[in-house]
Amino acid sequence: MTKTVVAKTKVAVLGATGAVGQRFVQLLDGHPWFELAAVAASERSAGRTYADACSWKLDTPMPEAARSLVVQPAEPGLPGRVVFSALDAAVAGPVEEAFAAAGYAVLSNARNHRMADDVPLLVPEVNPDHAGLIPVQRRRRGWKGFIATNPNCSTATLVLALAPLERRFGIKAVAVTTLQAISGAGYPGIPALDIVGNVVPFIAGEEEKIERETRKILGALAGDAVAPLAAVVSAQTTRVPVVDGHTAAVFVTLGTDPGVEAVREAFRTFRGTPQQRGLPSAPQHPVLMMEGDDRPQPRLDVNRERGMASLVGRVRACPLMGYKFIVLGHNTIRGAAGAAILNAELLQADGYLASAGSD
Amino acid sequence: MTKTVVAKTKVAVLGATGAVGQRFVQLLDGHPWFELAAVAASERSAGRTYADACSWKLDTPMPEAARSLVVQPAEPGLPGRVVFSALDAAVAGPVEEAFAAAGYAVLSNARNHRMADDVPLLVPEVNPDHAGLIPVQRRRRGWKGFIATNPNCSTATLVLALAPLERRFGIKAVAVTTLQAISGAGYPGIPALDIVGNVVPFIAGEEEKIERETRKILGALAGDAVAPLAAVVSAQTTRVPVVDGHTAAVFVTLGTDPGVEAVREAFRTFRGTPQQRGLPSAPQHPVLMMEGDDRPQPRLDVNRERGMASLVGRVRACPLMGYKFIVLGHNTIRGAAGAAILNAELLQADGYLASAGSD
Amino acid sequence: MTKTVVAKTKVAVLGATGAVGQRFVQLLDGHPWFELAAVAASERSAGRTYADACSWKLDTPMPEAARSLVVQPAEPGLPGRVVFSALDAAVAGPVEEAFAAAGYAVLSNARNHRMADDVPLLVPEVNPDHAGLIPVQRRRRGWKGFIATNPNCSTATLVLALAPLERRFGIKAVAVTTLQAISGAGYPGIPALDIVGNVVPFIAGEEEKIERETRKILGALAGDAVAPLAAVVSAQTTRVPVVDGHTAAVFVTLGTDPGVEAVREAFRTFRGTPQQRGLPSAPQHPVLMMEGDDRPQPRLDVNRERGMASLVGRVRACPLMGYKFIVLGHNTIRGAAGAAILNAELLQADGYLASAGSD
Amino acid sequence: MTKTVVAKTKVAVLGATGAVGQRFVQLLDGHPWFELAAVAASERSAGRTYADACSWKLDTPMPEAARSLVVQPAEPGLPGRVVFSALDAAVAGPVEEAFAAAGYAVLSNARNHRMADDVPLLVPEVNPDHAGLIPVQRRRRGWKGFIATNPNCSTATLVLALAPLERRFGIKAVAVTTLQAISGAGYPGIPALDIVGNVVPFIAGEEEKIERETRKILGALAGDAVAPLAAVVSAQTTRVPVVDGHTAAVFVTLGTDPGVEAVREAFRTFRGTPQQRGLPSAPQHPVLMMEGDDRPQPRLDVNRERGMASLVGRVRACPLMGYKFIVLGHNTIRGAAGAAILNAELLQADGYLASAGSD
Repeated sequence: MTKTVVAKTKVAVLGATGAVGQRFVQLLDGHPWFELAAVAASERSAGRTYADACSWKLDTPMPEAARSLVVQPAEPGLPGRVVFSALDAAVAGPVEEAFAAAGYAVLSNARNHRMADDVPLLVPEVNPDHAGLIPVQRRRRGWKGFIATNPNCSTATLVLALAPLERRFGIKAVAVTTLQAISGAGYPGIPALDIVGNVVPFIAGEEEKIERETRKILGALAGDAVAPLAAVVSAQTTRVPVVDGHTAAVFVTLGTDPGVEAVREAFRTFRGTPQQRGLPSAPQHPVLMMEGDDRPQPRLDVNRERGMASLVGRVRACPLMGYKFIVLGHNTIRGAAGAAILNAELLQADGYLASAGSD
Repeated sequence: MTKTVVAKTKVAVLGATGAVGQRFVQLLDGHPWFELAAVAASERSAGRTYADACSWKLDTPMPEAARSLVVQPAEPGLPGRVVFSALDAAVAGPVEEAFAAAGYAVLSNARNHRMADDVPLLVPEVNPDHAGLIPVQRRRRGWKGFIATNPNCSTATLVLALAPLERRFGIKAVAVTTLQAISGAGYPGIPALDIVGNVVPFIAGEEEKIERETRKILGALAGDAVAPLAAVVSAQTTRVPVVDGHTAAVFVTLGTDPGVEAVREAFRTFRGTPQQRGLPSAPQHPVLMMEGDDRPQPRLDVNRERGMASLVGRVRACPLMGYKFIVLGHNTIRGAAGAAILNAELLQADGYLASAGSD
Repeated sequence: MTKTVVAKTKVAVLGATGAVGQRFVQLLDGHPWFELAAVAASERSAGRTYADACSWKLDTPMPEAARSLVVQPAEPGLPGRVVFSALDAAVAGPVEEAFAAAGYAVLSNARNHRMADDVPLLVPEVNPDHAGLIPVQRRRRGWKGFIATNPNCSTATLVLALAPLERRFGIKAVAVTTLQAISGAGYPGIPALDIVGNVVPFIAGEEEKIERETRKILGALAGDAVAPLAAVVSAQTTRVPVVDGHTAAVFVTLGTDPGVEAVREAFRTFRGTPQQRGLPSAPQHPVLMMEGDDRPQPRLDVNRERGMASLVGRVRACPLMGYKFIVLGHNTIRGAAGAAILNAELLQADGYLASAGSD
Repeated sequence: MTKTVVAKTKVAVLGATGAVGQRFVQLLDGHPWFELAAVAASERSAGRTYADACSWKLDTPMPEAARSLVVQPAEPGLPGRVVFSALDAAVAGPVEEAFAAAGYAVLSNARNHRMADDVPLLVPEVNPDHAGLIPVQRRRRGWKGFIATNPNCSTATLVLALAPLERRFGIKAVAVTTLQAISGAGYPGIPALDIVGNVVPFIAGEEEKIERETRKILGALAGDAVAPLAAVVSAQTTRVPVVDGHTAAVFVTLGTDPGVEAVREAFRTFRGTPQQRGLPSAPQHPVLMMEGDDRPQPRLDVNRERGMASLVGRVRACPLMGYKFIVLGHNTIRGAAGAAILNAELLQADGYLASAGSD
């Protein structure tokens, strides 16, 4: 096996000690295109080694290469021109803007800029053309760099399953109820007393995010803006005692009435830009159809396709809305760090990363 | 406090050693109107004391009075004229019919006869008049006794919350996703490997039951039959690692658009026959409105109103269907044994139990 | 039943909004001797009603009488002369001392003063005579009031089971491994990500507490001091995903070799001062022997005897140490709030509360 | 990377559809020395494809190569000369004997023959020389094949951690309390109602297995028999709501008093035959010392060293027995299927497999 040695793109992770930050560090370990050159976090952690500053909560060991990195403050000056942001929304806004202004490509998992008119909310299989907002953003804001975002964790799973339906049949209405994992709330996140043997039928701000972000992602870029999909989306969100994996029960009304088999076929055959270009983190099947009446299940299925697919099961007719099905996705991989990395791969392939920071 | 001593009505429990059977035995302990005179179960258990035959799984001790009862075979000949059936659906059909033919009032939690035209599917706050099917049933089948049923556990919780809306505003459509507790599957029921840290997005037959039973209960008795409610009901059902308490996320379209406050008011003020007559097991509030954005929760709230109410929270407008809310109920109390006991209380108050078995 | 109306003793709870504080408020509701006259907490909560300041996490509703109490600062001036302290150890030390100096009887669940030479570490069934340290304490410290403590939650369960063995046979050595519930860590306490589907084999400071406190409680008061029991106690402590109830696996070497039956008999017949005097919170059986090979279990048994007993099962010979058994106790009732209330009842019965604050 | 193509040894798995059987099939997928040539199970499954007969419960997909294998009856006639037995103890005895008599090398995870005088109970790092019982067994029983066993799941974890201590310092006494995962009970195994939010302080037969098997494995082969280690072992076993990974809290008295550092060093430097010979399934560190006060933890650590190591933490002095520590192991890998496969690798390397079935 020959191996062309190409210099990897240096990247940094902001908010690297948190739950999503750790997932970035894990997924970037051994990445063929990107090299983790720096980790940044709050003042409290800065100056300590990553091994020392971070209470690692993933079930694989901390990557050796990351252990000795010294945690930096989350401000421009980090090596490279690409940063992944796992910052908390309480601080992400101005920090990410400062990096973009300083010429960095900011791949953000934070909610702060997702709904801004000139910020792409990207899902590479669904709306790769929305990257066209990047020049708009730079022009408007006078930035050398830019901010590109990935959706909220539950939206990420949902929208990947809706995309093949929208593309083939159009979507008129969606009612969705989520059963979300505890890792979605970060660390320390949910107190154990609140969730062991329990369901919490509320997640602050989550329903609004699903309803808004889904329509933006499935919307059409026209000129300098995205027109949201003209569909009604209504969500109810709950927390369940599952470690990783957001499940959603979806009711959907399509633009046509294609029949259950055609819906299944649309899921099964769905492919997008990441698959066509062979992006390193692309799942083979962005929507993986599960066999078995009782699938997908988080404990058994969440790591299929390395956590990068939406797993769909129980597709059936709905007497009220037309169709109903179950979808499951890995909330800290496809729903967070993995999504941002796939976005970076898309933008690298499209030449946006090379241009970041160039004078 | 003076106490008129009235002879209690002797009752028996069929399937007394199972999960629902145990709940019957627990709830009948100290009941003011009924006295547990016999327990019956499969051949395997018959002849042993209840203490010996039953692997008790409730978190209060087995009632002293029940411990020494000798388990009987589940066939007519049991003392009294009232039997509660917690039998498995695989055997309940003919056994319950034999008891009814022999003159017993059969209060059944099994699914077998629920949808029969001449069998009432009763929820005392909702459709007490459906007891009017009992004389029809007796006439048609030539029985001295009768069978009256209570709904499936998730339907029981849902329908109690839908009733005030139907009564005030009419209901056109319901989409519901349930998050059901493991005790709903009986014992041994769900293997731990299937549910610890997991969600199972399928419960055999459950969605059909919710869709059918809800419409029958909310339907109108006209002449000798019930015309189901002309509304569309669509359900998705899941199992979650909760011990007791089925949660449901409900989307509903009403006949009018009364506004969120009127919907809340309808829940809050809902009362029915059990409350008016002061039936012993009647909850004070059949629908208990929960304060707090993140309520109801099974671990904290399931025992409110002694497990006999539907707990409703998060009532809000839905951009798609009009209204959405969360409802929680105790699946083995209001969803099973408690429901059958409340039915028996209603029928006792209405004189149906006295007539059972009369020649 | 005649009922002499006696004025109840006014009591206050310090740290009333926390997990143990809530349990105090719950257990004091309807208490025959004590009346909850005030709740106190940190500056952050002071001035708000208890209903407003407290995120109630128990599975019974907040007592009506407590809802409208205005939260006070935790400093002398509270009504009455008795305070229960559920304060965090980080602040309990000087606050409790200030109350004692100001004439209050302080019944403390905090660890701060437990091991002080002149502070009783009381378990009413085991060492009621250690209350004799109270006059010593007052004399030495010049206090009108006093501090009396109850043990750490896991010690409380263990020592109640060891007491009958020490009394009858003497104890030479104990090796104990605990499996502790999440409520033992308060709220927010353990992050869900740390414990769902997991075991954490470490609880800071817990092993030392068990080893020291057990020996003090089982020790002998001689003159002005307690001589700890001359036994070796070694503990390993773990956290498991259980809501309430600390389980312990105990290996014990006795002073004699009485045989398993005699050990069981010692457990079964154990009674103490609370039972003899009929203290309101006294369990009928301070050690409740559980039948069944696989008991006690937290989910099924933790509320036996209203959470005030140690539940013992699986008593058997040990090839290494002589005997081994399982013990379970309710960590926030007998292991915290209930223990302090029982201590208060003992001291009330002994006249210590009347004297608190007298000039 | 060059690759010498050597014909792999054909192997079969008995009891292939159960929980341990599935783990065998998973671990044998891609094994460098062994090729899964057949799966066998009960009559009920025989004749169906493995994909059809098996309700796969692992969190990786069923290996493609296994899906189309037709399930065979568990009787001699299977291809190859090596069988792994994941049979239930209720049937394993005579079936395994029939295979051994017919010339197969039987690598058994069942308990039936473990304690037989002429059957090796092998842990390759600990007692590889016990394979010397194989010729004894063949001679005595007149078999062409043989049976070699691996220990019970909790013993496997414990003994690997005790071995370095026994080798360096000698062991006099062990008191151990286990916290065992639900997968240890197979499928369906533990009912969810018994373990969600609960601890069950009893596992039938488990304590006796730990006490006996540990002493046999650490014993010395002398002539035709193993003299068990002259140490006292006492166990208490509990079940906790963890999916995979048995934790044990160990108290141990050594033959000398080497100090905590020397004990840690013994763990850290422990290696055995599998490491020296580079057996394919050998962990790099058979005992992996975990850093961090609160480790090892099943959710985070159980897959370290591919589930083949005992993970040790919290090594410290014990006032009673000398030393205490926590150990964790993967109960269906090192505690079952992985153990049997490592045994097969050892015996292959030692030439025992080649000779199985030779005339």
